[in-house]
Amino acid sequence: MEGKAKNISFQQFEITKRHRMERNKHRSFVLWVTGLSASGKSSIANEVEKQLYARHIRTAILDGDNLRYGLNNDLGFSMEDRSENVRRTSQAAKLLVDAGLIAIVSLVSPLRSDREKARAIFEQDEFVEVFVDCPLKICEERDPKGLYKKVREGKIPEFTGITSPYEHPENPEIRVISDKQSIIESARQIIAYLDEHHHFSWEE
Amino acid sequence: MEGKAKNISFQQFEITKRHRMERNKHRSFVLWVTGLSASGKSSIANEVEKQLYARHIRTAILDGDNLRYGLNNDLGFSMEDRSENVRRTSQAAKLLVDAGLIAIVSLVSPLRSDREKARAIFEQDEFVEVFVDCPLKICEERDPKGLYKKVREGKIPEFTGITSPYEHPENPEIRVISDKQSIIESARQIIAYLDEHHHFSWEE
Repeated sequence: MEGKAKNISFQQFEITKRHRMERNKHRSFVLWVTGLSASGKSSIANEVEKQLYARHIRTAILDGDNLRYGLNNDLGFSMEDRSENVRRTSQAAKLLVDAGLIAIVSLVSPLRSDREKARAIFEQDEFVEVFVDCPLKICEERDPKGLYKKVREGKIPEFTGITSPYEHPENPEIRVISDKQSIIESARQIIAYLDEHHHFSWEE
Repeated sequence: MEGKAKNISFQQFEITKRHRMERNKHRSFVLWVTGLSASGKSSIANEVEKQLYARHIRTAILDGDNLRYGLNNDLGFSMEDRSENVRRTSQAAKLLVDAGLIAIVSLVSPLRSDREKARAIFEQDEFVEVFVDCPLKICEERDPKGLYKKVREGKIPEFTGITSPYEHPENPEIRVISDKQSIIESARQIIAYLDEHHHFSWEE
């Protein structure tokens, strides 16, 4: 909770996260989807959201690229900026979780330490890490945005998995093998895990 | 939409703001509450949220002080940091609005230009500015956190209304006179305005 500003005081409002869970009839938490570019994170996030919407579960997606048009539009791809990107994204996810929603974060978030810092701002069981595991070779073959091609041509200096590191999660709650499973299968696996672990049940 | 990052592409997800409005049965927008420290912004935000909760309308409060413990904890009170504070808060509000919620922002946001920039990222009718109008003298008498006292003792160098400017809104959608009206009256006035202007109606 330490920050730069002094002379501030935390304001507790009367409508709490618990009120919102009761109203929504489900718990709120963050689903943190990490993986290489083109591993399938956003497609899986989209499919998970669709399936949860069908179940009247309230969600929001925080997509790494989309955030770079808004909240994070002052950040580049240096390791320092990437850390700040992950930090702000985790804080935005926390606002959504406090608002009673399931925040689905789709973000490369290459460093283990940054992801652990993100986890640390949430309560126990509020942070579910999903590793979208796909070999670099396959991601590079897919290359839907032509980014890997540009990297190989030297047109993008900093790119995760090639010129900057990706540290895969050691103990993610969920690991989907996105080159072996379809998008729909991956989404089903994620939701099955959440059901099994009672992540939606708000009554204790 | 211009930012620092290159080689990013905006991802359109299938569940849209419209789906969320239909599900929630109300529109989403931002209620931007601006005013001096101790003018009553947070108390009014809290009361508005309670009254909307009773009507099953989904909200979230973005409180300036609270954000300084999280998303904005790297920012101080220089004019540059305040502008960045307002920018990030507006972007966080946009995420909440996209998620189908009414984002109630309680933030001094002293500069007209910063508030206009915040307004500009929203669609028409999605930004409702509430000016909590209270004479500096009354705010200073109230001084619930003892901040004005510290300022007068020279212990806080930058403080809105005393050592740094507050530019009151020229054409706010709503103006409440918080030294003449109770918190409850102010909240009722705000909600009456929103009802009259069909801010909750999502069917067009």
